[in-house]
Amino acid sequence: MELLEERIKKDGVVLPGNVLKVNSFLNHQIDPQLMMTLGQEFARLFKDAGVTRVLTAEASGIAPGIMAAYCLGVPMVFARKKKPSTVTDAVYTAEVFSYTKQVTNTISVEAKFLDANDRILVIDDFLANGEAAKGLISLAEQAGAEVVGVGVVVEKAFQGGHDWLVNHGYHLEALASIKEFADGQVIFN
Amino acid sequence: MELLEERIKKDGVVLPGNVLKVNSFLNHQIDPQLMMTLGQEFARLFKDAGVTRVLTAEASGIAPGIMAAYCLGVPMVFARKKKPSTVTDAVYTAEVFSYTKQVTNTISVEAKFLDANDRILVIDDFLANGEAAKGLISLAEQAGAEVVGVGVVVEKAFQGGHDWLVNHGYHLEALASIKEFADGQVIFN
Repeated sequence: MELLEERIKKDGVVLPGNVLKVNSFLNHQIDPQLMMTLGQEFARLFKDAGVTRVLTAEASGIAPGIMAAYCLGVPMVFARKKKPSTVTDAVYTAEVFSYTKQVTNTISVEAKFLDANDRILVIDDFLANGEAAKGLISLAEQAGAEVVGVGVVVEKAFQGGHDWLVNHGYHLEALASIKEFADGQVIFN
Repeated sequence: MELLEERIKKDGVVLPGNVLKVNSFLNHQIDPQLMMTLGQEFARLFKDAGVTRVLTAEASGIAPGIMAAYCLGVPMVFARKKKPSTVTDAVYTAEVFSYTKQVTNTISVEAKFLDANDRILVIDDFLANGEAAKGLISLAEQAGAEVVGVGVVVEKAFQGGHDWLVNHGYHLEALASIKEFADGQVIFN
């Protein structure tokens, strides 16, 4: 998606360790008009998938997730990183290791918000090693739901998550796909 | 806002301890069409305030925050509950005590995403004791910005946050204002 690639080139910052910082428009400060455009693009890419629910994770997945869900006309559920004290009902949980933060989080969704008949679109802001995507897929599949797509705003295609998803038969769409970083510049596929 | 009050009556669950659970449409599973309608209402209520940026907190504030920001045509920033490891820049921080979870979180925003010339609209899903709102106001005011409004989806008007904000001169708008809970029912103002 050219609009997004241009924005990443303009406002993204490449840090040591293959970290791309896009927090001026994607995951700390957010450009809502851009996010709506990304939601429209996700809806276009998955329009024939029969999506019944969008599943994402707090916090950075919520903005792209809700825009995609809005454009598809379906509810969105976001997995929490801790079990809130007001939850008294059954939950699905999955372990997610963050390479960036070097911590393992348990993500959870109340069981009643995922259904065996659901056709789930997983949305997230970044795909790198694929740990978050695998956790979200696990939550959906614990419910007996079918994951009909995985949509990410930005993927680092060289870090394993892309290959894992494609090799396991998931329909993956990345709105921007990074091939590599070279001399502090982003090279797209 | 009658649409929201009706939805709370229909799908909200009152738990012991004056807890209103609205996680089927507002803060775990989210109805994006409803959320857009709430965003439009926030934009209408604050259309003359000259808002330059929306400020909210992860995770539950992001959905109403981004819809309000989308409808106002301004960027949104969400405060994080921990300092991410990729942040190397200056941050503003504030302490927020959660009565529901009985923990104190430090929320933070990178300094460059708040400006002394900003006219900030603070958005959150719930207003109860006002701790989260006070923390967000503190972040904005540390930057020298002016808080031109505080918009919340639901307020529990009897728990102190409402009175504190109004008594300190802030322009507060709650889309649904709860007067009290009586016999497990929600009584609106």
